[in-house]
Amino acid sequence: MYKFVFMQDIEIITQRLLEFRDARDWDQFHNPKDLAVALSVEAGELLEIFLWKQPEVADRDKVKEELADVLAYAFLLANKYGFDIKEILLEKITDNAKKYPVDKAKGNAKKYNEL
Amino acid sequence: MYKFVFMQDIEIITQRLLEFRDARDWDQFHNPKDLAVALSVEAGELLEIFLWKQPEVADRDKVKEELADVLAYAFLLANKYGFDIKEILLEKITDNAKKYPVDKAKGNAKKYNEL
Amino acid sequence: MYKFVFMQDIEIITQRLLEFRDARDWDQFHNPKDLAVALSVEAGELLEIFLWKQPEVADRDKVKEELADVLAYAFLLANKYGFDIKEILLEKITDNAKKYPVDKAKGNAKKYNEL
Amino acid sequence: MYKFVFMQDIEIITQRLLEFRDARDWDQFHNPKDLAVALSVEAGELLEIFLWKQPEVADRDKVKEELADVLAYAFLLANKYGFDIKEILLEKITDNAKKYPVDKAKGNAKKYNEL
Repeated sequence: MYKFVFMQDIEIITQRLLEFRDARDWDQFHNPKDLAVALSVEAGELLEIFLWKQPEVADRDKVKEELADVLAYAFLLANKYGFDIKEILLEKITDNAKKYPVDKAKGNAKKYNEL
Repeated sequence: MYKFVFMQDIEIITQRLLEFRDARDWDQFHNPKDLAVALSVEAGELLEIFLWKQPEVADRDKVKEELADVLAYAFLLANKYGFDIKEILLEKITDNAKKYPVDKAKGNAKKYNEL
Repeated sequence: MYKFVFMQDIEIITQRLLEFRDARDWDQFHNPKDLAVALSVEAGELLEIFLWKQPEVADRDKVKEELADVLAYAFLLANKYGFDIKEILLEKITDNAKKYPVDKAKGNAKKYNEL
Repeated sequence: MYKFVFMQDIEIITQRLLEFRDARDWDQFHNPKDLAVALSVEAGELLEIFLWKQPEVADRDKVKEELADVLAYAFLLANKYGFDIKEILLEKITDNAKKYPVDKAKGNAKKYNEL
């Protein structure tokens, strides 16, 4: 007899991030405000890769690095609040489908309040 | 006889994001540079929730909304480059474990180049 | 007989920034969108100095450096649109005085739409 | 006999910003970290005007509004540290002239560490 334990990728990633954090005793710094600051700082570093450039010529490996940083802080912030990442994303897509109905939004990039 | 198809949450989320995008014919706007701009803009909206405040009093529901937006653009950007989100995050954790060895990094928030 | 030419500091700074830019033939990269991207990237670098820290212990010299970068791109963007920096700031203060009347806004940090 | 008092524009702007702030008793919120957060949030709002767009079609009046917000927080942060805006900008230009010598930097947008 055996037990089959299945874990979703998001859970695995989160667990590893928490292990990494706790091994360094960093939870003391990770209040939600500083996590949001960290996420914003990393989003800036990601953006810098595209500065003064056409989108195609940005360095793919650097994008990979910085995007991973952004995602790491986003996952940690979600964990801090106990959010289920899949749930909040699917909810958001449902909400956005109402704000951006296909017949009005198709083919244009206007904001919902300008549609 | 039947086929069991299992999908990971990250794959499910990405698929829904792409369906949402394609139903609106928005891929034409989603070049990597503008996706990075969008991610940075959303990170700023997330950050605004914490402005002038102690971390504890930030509005949880607003954090949920804005964090979902950040994650949506991060997933779309990863998809645009064909990155496997789990892979790039686990790689990043491995890299960071070298940059931040436990014995030097434990309990302090210094940057790796100041350790 | 002589002519006395007086220049405001803002004009002097802007002139030096333009000389620096033009000596390097960089105006070709300085479209308004990339200037806004640059400003956002530099604002992120400024913010990073405060990450995981109490406000008081941030490194003053680094703040000076990064704040100068932010201001440089802000001045260049203003110049690109032909904005008079003094004028747009004084206008903004007048507008904000209406959005944030003293009797309602005094001593609290709420946004104008929540007053 | 009379005294002629001349004020630079930067000084006038700063004085008005401080009057506005103090009439609302907002200095209590304006620690340097939150000012840097505010500046980053406003830089994000400025950037949003350019999202999904060619630089030329961004709304000029919105740029004016958001750029004024960015400048306001930059001036307030400079004041908080007692920085002279003209001085730190001219210093920065001098430093950058060394990092980006004309013969190497002319006509390309590479970062100084890649020149």
